[in-house]
Amino acid sequence: MEQKPERLERIQVAAMDEILGKPFKVLNDGFIRVIDYLGSDASIVQAARVSYGKGTKKVQEDRGLIRYLMRHDHTTPFEMCELKLHLRVPMDCWRQWIRHRTANINEYSTRYSIAIDAAQTTQPDEWRTQAVTNRQGSEGLLETEKGKTLTRKEKEIQDLARQLYEERLSLGVAREQARKDLPLSTFTEAYWKIDLHNLLHFLELRMAENAQFEIRQYAHLIGYEIVHRWCPISWEAFMDYRIHGLPLSRLEVELVQALAAADKNQAIRLAKDYGWLEYRDGKLTRNIERGEVEEKLKRLNLTIPWLDKD
Amino acid sequence: MEQKPERLERIQVAAMDEILGKPFKVLNDGFIRVIDYLGSDASIVQAARVSYGKGTKKVQEDRGLIRYLMRHDHTTPFEMCELKLHLRVPMDCWRQWIRHRTANINEYSTRYSIAIDAAQTTQPDEWRTQAVTNRQGSEGLLETEKGKTLTRKEKEIQDLARQLYEERLSLGVAREQARKDLPLSTFTEAYWKIDLHNLLHFLELRMAENAQFEIRQYAHLIGYEIVHRWCPISWEAFMDYRIHGLPLSRLEVELVQALAAADKNQAIRLAKDYGWLEYRDGKLTRNIERGEVEEKLKRLNLTIPWLDKD
Amino acid sequence: MEQKPERLERIQVAAMDEILGKPFKVLNDGFIRVIDYLGSDASIVQAARVSYGKGTKKVQEDRGLIRYLMRHDHTTPFEMCELKLHLRVPMDCWRQWIRHRTANINEYSTRYSIAIDAAQTTQPDEWRTQAVTNRQGSEGLLETEKGKTLTRKEKEIQDLARQLYEERLSLGVAREQARKDLPLSTFTEAYWKIDLHNLLHFLELRMAENAQFEIRQYAHLIGYEIVHRWCPISWEAFMDYRIHGLPLSRLEVELVQALAAADKNQAIRLAKDYGWLEYRDGKLTRNIERGEVEEKLKRLNLTIPWLDKD
Amino acid sequence: MEQKPERLERIQVAAMDEILGKPFKVLNDGFIRVIDYLGSDASIVQAARVSYGKGTKKVQEDRGLIRYLMRHDHTTPFEMCELKLHLRVPMDCWRQWIRHRTANINEYSTRYSIAIDAAQTTQPDEWRTQAVTNRQGSEGLLETEKGKTLTRKEKEIQDLARQLYEERLSLGVAREQARKDLPLSTFTEAYWKIDLHNLLHFLELRMAENAQFEIRQYAHLIGYEIVHRWCPISWEAFMDYRIHGLPLSRLEVELVQALAAADKNQAIRLAKDYGWLEYRDGKLTRNIERGEVEEKLKRLNLTIPWLDKD
Repeated sequence: MEQKPERLERIQVAAMDEILGKPFKVLNDGFIRVIDYLGSDASIVQAARVSYGKGTKKVQEDRGLIRYLMRHDHTTPFEMCELKLHLRVPMDCWRQWIRHRTANINEYSTRYSIAIDAAQTTQPDEWRTQAVTNRQGSEGLLETEKGKTLTRKEKEIQDLARQLYEERLSLGVAREQARKDLPLSTFTEAYWKIDLHNLLHFLELRMAENAQFEIRQYAHLIGYEIVHRWCPISWEAFMDYRIHGLPLSRLEVELVQALAAADKNQAIRLAKDYGWLEYRDGKLTRNIERGEVEEKLKRLNLTIPWLDKD
Repeated sequence: MEQKPERLERIQVAAMDEILGKPFKVLNDGFIRVIDYLGSDASIVQAARVSYGKGTKKVQEDRGLIRYLMRHDHTTPFEMCELKLHLRVPMDCWRQWIRHRTANINEYSTRYSIAIDAAQTTQPDEWRTQAVTNRQGSEGLLETEKGKTLTRKEKEIQDLARQLYEERLSLGVAREQARKDLPLSTFTEAYWKIDLHNLLHFLELRMAENAQFEIRQYAHLIGYEIVHRWCPISWEAFMDYRIHGLPLSRLEVELVQALAAADKNQAIRLAKDYGWLEYRDGKLTRNIERGEVEEKLKRLNLTIPWLDKD
Repeated sequence: MEQKPERLERIQVAAMDEILGKPFKVLNDGFIRVIDYLGSDASIVQAARVSYGKGTKKVQEDRGLIRYLMRHDHTTPFEMCELKLHLRVPMDCWRQWIRHRTANINEYSTRYSIAIDAAQTTQPDEWRTQAVTNRQGSEGLLETEKGKTLTRKEKEIQDLARQLYEERLSLGVAREQARKDLPLSTFTEAYWKIDLHNLLHFLELRMAENAQFEIRQYAHLIGYEIVHRWCPISWEAFMDYRIHGLPLSRLEVELVQALAAADKNQAIRLAKDYGWLEYRDGKLTRNIERGEVEEKLKRLNLTIPWLDKD
Repeated sequence: MEQKPERLERIQVAAMDEILGKPFKVLNDGFIRVIDYLGSDASIVQAARVSYGKGTKKVQEDRGLIRYLMRHDHTTPFEMCELKLHLRVPMDCWRQWIRHRTANINEYSTRYSIAIDAAQTTQPDEWRTQAVTNRQGSEGLLETEKGKTLTRKEKEIQDLARQLYEERLSLGVAREQARKDLPLSTFTEAYWKIDLHNLLHFLELRMAENAQFEIRQYAHLIGYEIVHRWCPISWEAFMDYRIHGLPLSRLEVELVQALAAADKNQAIRLAKDYGWLEYRDGKLTRNIERGEVEEKLKRLNLTIPWLDKD
């Protein structure tokens, strides 16, 4: 083993120590605070070198090693770092958050304590309209005039729900039952602890464009403000290999092969075989996968053969 | 190995096949349905015998083996059975359910689809009052007269919240945002799949007296109506060794030793050492652990030395 | 919800029922047997439709839905299928297998029972030589003549170890201690149960070229003989989007963009910036990532700009 | 929330900082070293107070709160502490260790590197004999004279296996294959990271009398030398409520009730009903559960009614 079995110091990250406990604001009344952390980029290298033993003599450089690990999905060394956050989020957002099962969680209990008296509010110009192509998302905004009415009614129902909650409590109803009609927009708080590998997976899903706006705000903040400070080399590798990478399927590889060989006919033949090019009344019918492929070809600067008019 | 590597039939449980898909009703509009299962009491034995190999020749009887496994926390064979349920529960209840991280889950998405138009309702005689000793629970019921008002107002806010939700949708607000002020009492649905070991752990916590009323209804139903049919021997062992057992702490063991030796003074001395007997103004002050100990001594038919007047 | 809460039949897969219990042979004395399964391609659709609710009306076709889920890493519906196998593997191979933490396991216990009297053997023409570029792998084979000696000595040490084991047992040494010097090549057996999502992750890692030969044999068999029969649509999607796909990093995307724009100079400039093109004595120095990039460009039919001589 | 969202310091435990990196020796050539830790007893309280919020005003004292949490299996706050160890253990022992699936692990890879040149050795007076009642354990020791022979032969096979391993390597055999006949006693190393809740579960199982001697040495050391320093209040509570407690089953509770009521006949009647008292040729037949019950009655100072001769 490289490492001599001798005394050690705890791994400290000065950039993290500076922000310990500081609330980063999110939404109208949410926040994220770093409570503690374990490890750093250096711990990833430390753990990887246990695995590789003497075999790593040639991998001199830490940055190179971390990038290699990220590129090849050698994920276990990233589990050697741990982050503990204190969060304040709307319950509706928390419902998505909690689906990540590998974290440790202590949530504020409204059985023990009175529910937090704050809910997520929406400004008149913040009402998002239903996305058409992506059935689960939103795109665009409602006219502010309509938004004004909705914002007023939002306040009314939130006030009414709180009033009813407090009336129940004052009559002696148990907290666990009184809360039942609080709106999903009510804020909750939690301690949330997770290792870096699982955190990056969380960020990959929740920073994505198709993640819901609210949780995306939290994910961006955790990524760009916290992980970026904590493990800058891992963060850069994550950006290069995961977030800004582009996965091609077998079908797309074959298409690119044809395009690289300048064989447009073959490319169109492939797309037909894959069922991407069905026509009705002389027009291409909607096909989700073809839409995705077109986006990828555009990003790669390649022409889309079936749209190419020359 | 005992078992010959030859052809097998799938393990079937007739009592389960009879109820497949049948909705068991819970609360005003919830249900539980068995979708599928894998294994039975017989699979637990089958898996345990792989572990024990020839060593099990003397453990002839399946019931004895399952009870031995349960008694000694040999939990891995119980993981060899799997249950898949379709649930309909209030979101407030689901918030507790989802804290069990070892299950597989597919929940109805109100980003994709319009929220289920049903909420948990409360009858005038079903409003529970706050427990005094157990800070997180409820005990007793509110007078029905007061309950009538609360039930009426419950309906009002649920109707209003739904109306507002639909108004938002009709204005074109995205489903993911429109839902934000729905009450926690709104029903959701999910497929929930879990192995028997983790299911029993769920039941132990959620069938307990201090679990919230709502989730307790679901847990009881899963236990007594489903697991009981599915793995009757494991269920009986679970009842005998886990649910109806009594764990004694080191402190309680020493107390019982003193009582068994009829040494009341020693018992009281121990209780004092443990800090259970503090007096203020000549009266015992409240002590949570002493209360728990007294309950246990009563259950064991033993006298509580510090309350014994002779 | 689409699905009416009514009676159900268990999901059966005829192609699986046919092979239940049948041993598929692996290595000199290993096997894999299917013990039981839960669900099928149809259960993935069933679970996904709970999530999507009415939103799925337009996704008519099961195959299309499963391929969409696989392509977009919507992994939870794949967790709704479960497979239970009976395995016989060398302990050395099992050491890698067990690193996958999401499975349920019952292993043959050599504390309870006498160790299985079989070890993995190597034919004279099966001794693999150390890979040079991939420090953890093997490539090529040793000359059979040298292999003969090694195979003879392999048998000698395996026989000797077994003999010593049995001598210890006959002297009364506890099984748990007697086994301590058995070779890692000794076979063990286990029941292994895992959901389809986690199984596919296992297969992705263990069917890969850089996985060790032994575990690759098992993984191939599980994939091509078992999953292929069990969930053929998922298997096909897994092949198209995961196994035969090609992930490009941000750096590689930028390189392809330059090549697609026929800007060879820009491509070389990028490669230099990334540190891929360092020269010593007029020759390119070895760079792991550049090697990977070259492989990918070749697969895409694209020229490698720094090797292109025209 | 009690806690103001303000700046924090990292939680430090001086008693842990003192031993950071120091190797605690185990077996002939093993060790445990603390690499890092996150949290302390104080973090458990901190996390629990987020759950309880204002509800905890009355639980003033940290020790009382931690003991309450331990007694009532409120386990999530204990997950808020994390420990990272560097271990050196025989592979045979590691095979048991790795069955605990909730830890993060980086093991020394003998695909990348040459296997560690050390194996667990046994002194002539350390050969344990097979237990009779507990089929999986050991009890007593072999005569040293016989032990001498076994120790000599142990060295011979370990030396031979190493020699063969090195011969294979020198012939160019891949490391991943050359290692296949190394003995299970060969040492391996790993970084192992786990939260306190799961660590205590590990310790409960592996410090137990029926755990194998080797892993028990490691578990004792982790418990008494490391956790004891790190989280002394949690450790004390763990001892009092888990390690030195005594769980009674429903059957045993009923038996104690009868004994407390001095109703020996009823006690014997119960034992008969439970099937604990079967006679053959006028003698009690062996019954595992009855043996366990007798041990418990003895520990509680209660007479065993069926052995009581008066």
